[in-house]
Amino acid sequence: MTRIAVGTDQLDVAVEVDAGLESFFAERIQLAARYGSEYQHLWERARVASAGGKRIRPRFVMDAFWALGGDPVRGFRGALDVAVAFELLHTAFLLHDDVIDGDTVRRGIPNLVGEFEAEARAQGISPARATLWGETAAILAGDLLIQASQSLVARIEAPPERRAALLDVFDHSVFVTAAGEFADVSFSVGIGDARLPDVLAMTERKTAAYSFAGPLTAGAVLTGADGDALEALGEYGRLLGIAFQLGDDLLGVFGAPELTGKSRLSDLREGKETSVIAYARATPSWSGIEPLFGRADLSEDDGRAIARALVECGARAFVEGLVDEHASRAAAVLHASALPLGLVRELGSVAASCVGRIA
Amino acid sequence: MTRIAVGTDQLDVAVEVDAGLESFFAERIQLAARYGSEYQHLWERARVASAGGKRIRPRFVMDAFWALGGDPVRGFRGALDVAVAFELLHTAFLLHDDVIDGDTVRRGIPNLVGEFEAEARAQGISPARATLWGETAAILAGDLLIQASQSLVARIEAPPERRAALLDVFDHSVFVTAAGEFADVSFSVGIGDARLPDVLAMTERKTAAYSFAGPLTAGAVLTGADGDALEALGEYGRLLGIAFQLGDDLLGVFGAPELTGKSRLSDLREGKETSVIAYARATPSWSGIEPLFGRADLSEDDGRAIARALVECGARAFVEGLVDEHASRAAAVLHASALPLGLVRELGSVAASCVGRIA
Repeated sequence: MTRIAVGTDQLDVAVEVDAGLESFFAERIQLAARYGSEYQHLWERARVASAGGKRIRPRFVMDAFWALGGDPVRGFRGALDVAVAFELLHTAFLLHDDVIDGDTVRRGIPNLVGEFEAEARAQGISPARATLWGETAAILAGDLLIQASQSLVARIEAPPERRAALLDVFDHSVFVTAAGEFADVSFSVGIGDARLPDVLAMTERKTAAYSFAGPLTAGAVLTGADGDALEALGEYGRLLGIAFQLGDDLLGVFGAPELTGKSRLSDLREGKETSVIAYARATPSWSGIEPLFGRADLSEDDGRAIARALVECGARAFVEGLVDEHASRAAAVLHASALPLGLVRELGSVAASCVGRIA
Repeated sequence: MTRIAVGTDQLDVAVEVDAGLESFFAERIQLAARYGSEYQHLWERARVASAGGKRIRPRFVMDAFWALGGDPVRGFRGALDVAVAFELLHTAFLLHDDVIDGDTVRRGIPNLVGEFEAEARAQGISPARATLWGETAAILAGDLLIQASQSLVARIEAPPERRAALLDVFDHSVFVTAAGEFADVSFSVGIGDARLPDVLAMTERKTAAYSFAGPLTAGAVLTGADGDALEALGEYGRLLGIAFQLGDDLLGVFGAPELTGKSRLSDLREGKETSVIAYARATPSWSGIEPLFGRADLSEDDGRAIARALVECGARAFVEGLVDEHASRAAAVLHASALPLGLVRELGSVAASCVGRIA
């Protein structure tokens, strides 16, 4: 019964998940029309906000589900709903993250906040009110998607103990992600200490829980997998999630913009407290970085100067080492586990892809 | 088996619901401690935010559940969880509403936004960052409560068709409330037309759905009540919810501050588009009200002048008439229904309490 989602099967998962999302939004958009054109428009923009992602969370759900012998007839529809639910949750987090960060652009195009703001301005609404309109739209769209994602999970047909375990995974994912987001903002407003251990803990909570460990264990729970398999997948997801986020921290400062979709200056201008910055803070080089860090008017030259200093003080090498270490530990967890060989290979290749992403 | 929740039984419901909320928050606060003191503090403030309400939503759930013959052994725990879930949802909506409205005070004391903002300022954080911190706390607390409320509902042990019907009620409540909130904000930023029919539709969506019709039908669904009972309760809830909100619109301008807990000036200063204002807009008196309406520096004298104009143009009498009409229609729905007599009496007295609240 074990079937491994590799190669072309992954394409199928993406197609199925996109179809699931499409039908979810089509139904809501139609329903929303009863409540006026603005509300319908909100749902249309929520659909746009959920489009175009890499669908890594749904892939993890389906990979674990197939590999651990999920029932292709009775269990498949439920697994797909869980996959869609994680993607909706992800969109909701992005929407609220944009409100909190005051962002109106994502990957070079206006995000949902920016869209509604621009539309209000085009109608002659004052800038302050237009911003309020954009933020309201994003808050409500996020609320709706959080509730809908949880409702999708609630409707899955499964034996009571599997349903309870699945709800536990979902509860835990949201609870831990909110803790990570709260810590992240505490650093940026200056409430919390952004020391390296704190930044690493925040990274794990904000990213690893709902993007890696949550989807993998949710997919496994649906097959009735045993405690050892769940533990191995949870630990792999935790370690890999950290490796991925640390890799993103590096890409933010050192990655090619054509690859990352954002300027090398944006994290530095924002004053984002990443692992790279946390390491540098504790070195003598920080005195040279500090006057530039977090400046909204940072020039390209300033950005290059910071990047050089982050290399010279050892921050880049240190974080690259952490990425390698976490990816290796993630791979080791897989190999020490009794997980099916196909899943070990598949997830092992994801772990390997974390390493050397900048080179 | 039918047991009616009147008199002392209602006190018991309030005690049970408070105990349910208390145990919900105690568990989360303890869990949150693992993720740092700030996160624990967030959950403690969320508990405070949910305290002290009138618990009308839980009462509606339990009234319908008992009156329609809910199983006191196997069904009671589930009904109580649904009651708690509606109260958590209500708290979440209030938290996000405060962010959207930029409110830092509720009933004279700092709300969750205001608390976190004040704490950040006390630590020397700049005002802008302190506001961001307060708003982030409220956005995340609301997200957590929306998810948790839906998860509570998802865990209820009930036959599949009752569970599905219950989830439908919850989905619908959230979907419609968000539509109402979006319309409300559209009026205040000047995107939508705040004409009387639009304001009445907004009122129904924002208040009646999740505060009246939702809890009543949810309590009924848990007993396996038939379509006629659900329809009667839904329609009663819809009409009564409108009557209540219109009553609140009147109280905002004409109510005694010691009764309402807020100044008669606050809605007028905010420029809140209520039914009273929507009616006045279409009368010749509006030209006298317009220059004052929405002014943040409105004086007590200005407030009295507006109130007089709202009486003279017939707005007050018109909305009082609407309250009476909706409350009467709600009572008529009850009496025409086959609902148990005790429930008809109980809900009828709630309807009667809507009328003449200002006198």
